[in-house]
Amino acid sequence: MTGTTLDDYTDRYARRVRGMTASEIRALFAVASRPEVVSLAGGAPYIAALPLDAVGEMLGRLGSEDGVTTLQYGIGQGTLELRERICEVMSLSGIDVGSGASPEDVVVTVGGQQALDLVARLFLDPGDVVLAEGPTYVGALGVFQAAQAQVVHVPMDEDGLVPEALELAIAEVSKSGRRAKFLYTIPTFQNPAGVTLTEERRERVLDICERAGLLVIEDDPYGQLGFDGDVPAPLRARRRDGVFYLSTFSKTFAPGLRVGWILAPHAVRDKLVIASEAQILCPSAYAQAAVTTYLSTMPWREQLKTYREVYRERRDALLTALQDLMPPGTTWTRPGGGLFVWASLPDGLDSKAMMPRAIAARVAYVPGTGFYADGNGAGHMRLNFSFPPPDRIREGVRRLAGVMEQEIAMRQVFGAIGGPTGRRRGQAGSDTPGPDLA
Amino acid sequence: MTGTTLDDYTDRYARRVRGMTASEIRALFAVASRPEVVSLAGGAPYIAALPLDAVGEMLGRLGSEDGVTTLQYGIGQGTLELRERICEVMSLSGIDVGSGASPEDVVVTVGGQQALDLVARLFLDPGDVVLAEGPTYVGALGVFQAAQAQVVHVPMDEDGLVPEALELAIAEVSKSGRRAKFLYTIPTFQNPAGVTLTEERRERVLDICERAGLLVIEDDPYGQLGFDGDVPAPLRARRRDGVFYLSTFSKTFAPGLRVGWILAPHAVRDKLVIASEAQILCPSAYAQAAVTTYLSTMPWREQLKTYREVYRERRDALLTALQDLMPPGTTWTRPGGGLFVWASLPDGLDSKAMMPRAIAARVAYVPGTGFYADGNGAGHMRLNFSFPPPDRIREGVRRLAGVMEQEIAMRQVFGAIGGPTGRRRGQAGSDTPGPDLA
Repeated sequence: MTGTTLDDYTDRYARRVRGMTASEIRALFAVASRPEVVSLAGGAPYIAALPLDAVGEMLGRLGSEDGVTTLQYGIGQGTLELRERICEVMSLSGIDVGSGASPEDVVVTVGGQQALDLVARLFLDPGDVVLAEGPTYVGALGVFQAAQAQVVHVPMDEDGLVPEALELAIAEVSKSGRRAKFLYTIPTFQNPAGVTLTEERRERVLDICERAGLLVIEDDPYGQLGFDGDVPAPLRARRRDGVFYLSTFSKTFAPGLRVGWILAPHAVRDKLVIASEAQILCPSAYAQAAVTTYLSTMPWREQLKTYREVYRERRDALLTALQDLMPPGTTWTRPGGGLFVWASLPDGLDSKAMMPRAIAARVAYVPGTGFYADGNGAGHMRLNFSFPPPDRIREGVRRLAGVMEQEIAMRQVFGAIGGPTGRRRGQAGSDTPGPDLA
Repeated sequence: MTGTTLDDYTDRYARRVRGMTASEIRALFAVASRPEVVSLAGGAPYIAALPLDAVGEMLGRLGSEDGVTTLQYGIGQGTLELRERICEVMSLSGIDVGSGASPEDVVVTVGGQQALDLVARLFLDPGDVVLAEGPTYVGALGVFQAAQAQVVHVPMDEDGLVPEALELAIAEVSKSGRRAKFLYTIPTFQNPAGVTLTEERRERVLDICERAGLLVIEDDPYGQLGFDGDVPAPLRARRRDGVFYLSTFSKTFAPGLRVGWILAPHAVRDKLVIASEAQILCPSAYAQAAVTTYLSTMPWREQLKTYREVYRERRDALLTALQDLMPPGTTWTRPGGGLFVWASLPDGLDSKAMMPRAIAARVAYVPGTGFYADGNGAGHMRLNFSFPPPDRIREGVRRLAGVMEQEIAMRQVFGAIGGPTGRRRGQAGSDTPGPDLA
């Protein structure tokens, strides 16, 4: 017979997406969103910093005055007006006419997530290798797993991706007879690590990829959220060929509208539009008009400044609290922008195993394992500072430090049941929270 | 080496999506949208029939009063509030608690297009066969081509899909050693054919699919736009297992918000959510709040009635104009709802070849070839009646009849250059409009 039962399909699909079902973040959100929990787990912007009255007025007019356009279908690539505004936004980062940026080569997407998914859909075949920082954005791992691609992580240090490690990874993939399709990188205020690739390394990474014939997918949601002066120009500002530049208005305006974009090499722009049409027909005309009008009529540069100031204060609150309260042996990154700090725990602590006890102590974070395709990361955690106010951040760190001290004490009393590696392996397959959570 | 050049990728992808690049509709939109052209080519609802002042006021409040929620991230499945409203909407069509419909099994999507793409993404592997009506929705062909699946068309008559033809198609696919994954069907006010599957055939089609172990993907964007009394209940109202039900607010409210949904068999609901998260992270919280509030606080049932009345008048205008003006040998369907009439041209006329001359005569339609995966359809065209007002519809048909009469006269003077099949084949590969278009 030609067909199969629903059960067959379900089993088959379950095998295909096994990697995705273990996402710690999904399970976590349900409990972390309780009001009594200090959540350092999210990645949400502080929307209350927007001038909501004025935004609301603008949104209302888009319906009452321009409804016949904004509530109607649009074109797959996105409106020219928005693509022009996007070029204006990118020019702030040095991606301008001189570097070959043009509204013609911008494709408007449903947030940065669809941007990445479209690129993956264009290029990835099952079994292909993607190089990515380790740790990397959890949503990118979801895209690569859905494409049945293998992720090979490249280590970072405080200066971002390590060029020598990238060269080594390329060589090893090649030696093993596999095919690396591209480097996926978040060079600026990396999620989750909070580090930024230095000027000098940007050139070296680009040279290495160029020599290896490797495309670069540059994901840059945070580049305009720098707190401490100059931010290195994006990779795309340095090379017009071979770099796909992905960004979003989710961090600089509002994620609820789901508007992102790709600046694509001209040769594939049309393919991306066709792929996007197959996926969503067209991006929301209303959401596009909202972003366009926001960028045309409202003080968006001032709003960026506001977001930066709010987040700088919160980053400082987080760093100070970590310094004051964390047990010895804990280390963390000191991001110059963005939304996240990456903390490394004292030897032997396991962020995933500790999670149920942290939730019981009313604090949440994302365990480091969520950011690796290979089960690593249990000795680390991601801490968000964009959403909770400074005093809540400090309270969260106080609770977290308490849990960690308890863990350390328990380990000293009962001893370790196995080496850290053995324990990590054992827990990587489980995604049911422990009994403490109930 | 592990990598390849951008050109390699582009070539490879061009091969993969070759079927999609020929979409007549894309090329058409640019010219058909000129104001002097009467476009019978679109599929757009008549948004001006909405109470735009009230909708605008509602949209404004969603920003100013609820912005911290509506402009923020949401969850992948969509809000419970909207999924409850969606169940209310479906219950109007007989998909209710009794047929196992629950907010738990609804997944909110970016329009009906993402709904279909997600199902394809879950189930289709390259080379798989999809059964679909011939002709069928052009956007569905885009999805199946992107998934590298083969579409086998099943003929319709005025009572919709022909059950005997479905059985035959299933047997032939099986005999050829290929694997049919599902039947994709638009049973009610079909796009583009405008026909509706009768009550009796609905049961037979479901029985045939059940016996063959074939899933059914029921696409139902138009079911609530019936003009002439009772509409047969959806397939999903008759079977709770084995049917995926897809719909959208694009035709009953506003396509610019991009909100659709899937009612999925419980066993795969979670897989759809995970696949959607990989694709778009989450649907727009703002757009979801807009639809929820529209359905909770505004007279949406009255609005449905308004849309039905507007479209019935326009359908009547189209049918009358066709009756009065079309050259002999032309036939067409008489839809009881929806947005489209399917017209069959006098022997020897080719709707695709004629298109440039139609545009020169300031009228646009979609050539029938756009709705077939196999190059068929040149003897047909799709005519939309939802967007242009009645007098423009009549003027469009008058222009179209003039072009057709000219074509017929030319054929009589110069004779046919080849049989209709030969001519169709020759033109199927071309997507540049002729010189008359300039």
